[in-house]
Amino acid sequence: MDPSSTSTPPIPPPDETKPQDLSTSISRFRLDRVLNQEATEKSILILERQPFPSSSSEDDNAAIRNIISRISDVRTLGENDVYRWFLGSTSPSTTTPTPEKTKHPIPLPPDLKINLIIPCTAAHIRKYSPQRYRLVRETPDVYRRLVRPFVEKKRAEGRLNWVWNILEGRTEQDDVLLREEGGDEGFIVLPDLNWDRTTLSTLHLLALPLRRDLFSLRDLTKAHLPWLRHMRSRILDAVTGLYPSLERDEVLLYFHYQPTYHHLHIHVTHVNLLQQPSNGTQAIGKAFGFDQLLAQLESMGGGDDAGMMDVEIAFVLGEESELWGEVFSGLKVLEEGR
Amino acid sequence: MDPSSTSTPPIPPPDETKPQDLSTSISRFRLDRVLNQEATEKSILILERQPFPSSSSEDDNAAIRNIISRISDVRTLGENDVYRWFLGSTSPSTTTPTPEKTKHPIPLPPDLKINLIIPCTAAHIRKYSPQRYRLVRETPDVYRRLVRPFVEKKRAEGRLNWVWNILEGRTEQDDVLLREEGGDEGFIVLPDLNWDRTTLSTLHLLALPLRRDLFSLRDLTKAHLPWLRHMRSRILDAVTGLYPSLERDEVLLYFHYQPTYHHLHIHVTHVNLLQQPSNGTQAIGKAFGFDQLLAQLESMGGGDDAGMMDVEIAFVLGEESELWGEVFSGLKVLEEGR
Repeated sequence: MDPSSTSTPPIPPPDETKPQDLSTSISRFRLDRVLNQEATEKSILILERQPFPSSSSEDDNAAIRNIISRISDVRTLGENDVYRWFLGSTSPSTTTPTPEKTKHPIPLPPDLKINLIIPCTAAHIRKYSPQRYRLVRETPDVYRRLVRPFVEKKRAEGRLNWVWNILEGRTEQDDVLLREEGGDEGFIVLPDLNWDRTTLSTLHLLALPLRRDLFSLRDLTKAHLPWLRHMRSRILDAVTGLYPSLERDEVLLYFHYQPTYHHLHIHVTHVNLLQQPSNGTQAIGKAFGFDQLLAQLESMGGGDDAGMMDVEIAFVLGEESELWGEVFSGLKVLEEGR
Repeated sequence: MDPSSTSTPPIPPPDETKPQDLSTSISRFRLDRVLNQEATEKSILILERQPFPSSSSEDDNAAIRNIISRISDVRTLGENDVYRWFLGSTSPSTTTPTPEKTKHPIPLPPDLKINLIIPCTAAHIRKYSPQRYRLVRETPDVYRRLVRPFVEKKRAEGRLNWVWNILEGRTEQDDVLLREEGGDEGFIVLPDLNWDRTTLSTLHLLALPLRRDLFSLRDLTKAHLPWLRHMRSRILDAVTGLYPSLERDEVLLYFHYQPTYHHLHIHVTHVNLLQQPSNGTQAIGKAFGFDQLLAQLESMGGGDDAGMMDVEIAFVLGEESELWGEVFSGLKVLEEGR
């Protein structure tokens, strides 16, 4: 393409740019528009926020201290119990702009989301501290003899009372987007706590069966296939009905294994969530695709009672998790002793 | 816990803090240390970098223009062909600090990674433009009749020559970490292009079989199970041998489906990668766990020739991908016409 064919080449073509001048290309990059499909663009500038320094060296600690000391324009977003949320800026809007930039002084948007937990407990510190992660292979035997009893103990401690409250209509009923009655086949759909209930591209709902005997995907068998297919279809009906700009093939359903709580539940999200930075909750080793599960059950040998109880499942566990502490850390010691 | 039990409570306990004073808590937060396991912490400050404004509104464009105009302290990292990499800061180190901060003037670490592509092509623009993603369900029939011929056409175009060069020892031989000879069972292991070859927590290697008849996990059958288990074991031996601080249960193996290129290859990464922000390449809908695949083959009905060719696989496709354009967009039109 002839460089002279556009009136304002944003920066000189590369052969005119000496290596030592490269840095100046950045400041001379002029924004035409945020990238879109038009073919008139001549160069692309990709900006990525860098992670914070995170070693515990003196230099990194000093850098973090410096960043904190410079935080300005703090705006409160909300608070709940010991948790508080703010927006803020590392780059104060009072920065004196250079002369040629004074014509249109536009404040920088906040570049920090700030969460403050005060006072915090040892459990908070554990949750936010780096921990070592392990890939464990849960065989059918390990599940039956060690993990199932662990899960039953947790359920007996009343940890699922908040779920029973929702299923029985005592709490969060205004949130229920779909309630399908029907005994063993009934289920409800409601927003996940982490969704802002507004941004469609980060849509995150949960579907919970009304029956209480399914602890996790481990309890699903070939006999459940017709119900699972029906549930998928009804969830997609409901979601595309509620959000008409969303199409059926833009909705992703998955489980967690191990889940955070042991009443079977299905995560229902926008497929675009996969493309965004996340904390790994949709990564293999933690997430188990709903379609993947159906395919595995469909191709499985055996009769109607064959199911996920009979297969090995590998997943990632943090060493601070109860399941690591109570089951898999011991198994690792045994294995290494062999 | 008694707040007076530590000598320097970082900020007043919450009941002394009026809601309108919350923002000041941030600037008064004093860094004791970057979070670690010690139980003397009294509050937790979580800083998250905010995403850049990304709508194409005038305000957002102005904000982006402003961010670009303020980039300073640009340092060149490297260049290759049309690609150039820099580090830079949105917050200039020339910012005048407030008086009490002048004692220890410490520069902020760069908070931006900058990539510049110049000149760029229409393909570059397409790659970096937002695209719509779709969850497609590839049935065995669709694979055999449409996807397999598509893949064969791509292979015939010579797209895998760079792979044959590696397998035959013509290129990248210095990079090969493990070469296991043995006809149909042989394979090599080498670093993924995106790994810096240094940071263990982001370890990313690739294992490539020497045989050329396996296009993707679709070609794996129950007959391959002993070889797959042997390969997993040898890969784990090699990786933990090369990086002795890494244990076997800290290594995650997975495939991509659909893969970027159609010679079977296994991604070998540190499990911690799952916990980090990523571009979704380890998310379900794109990644397929190696252990998951083994479990599915093991539990599958049928004889040695039963395999992944016989199951439905759901995955996420961008509308700008060739496979969407040549196969699945047409299928969607057909389905909607029914």
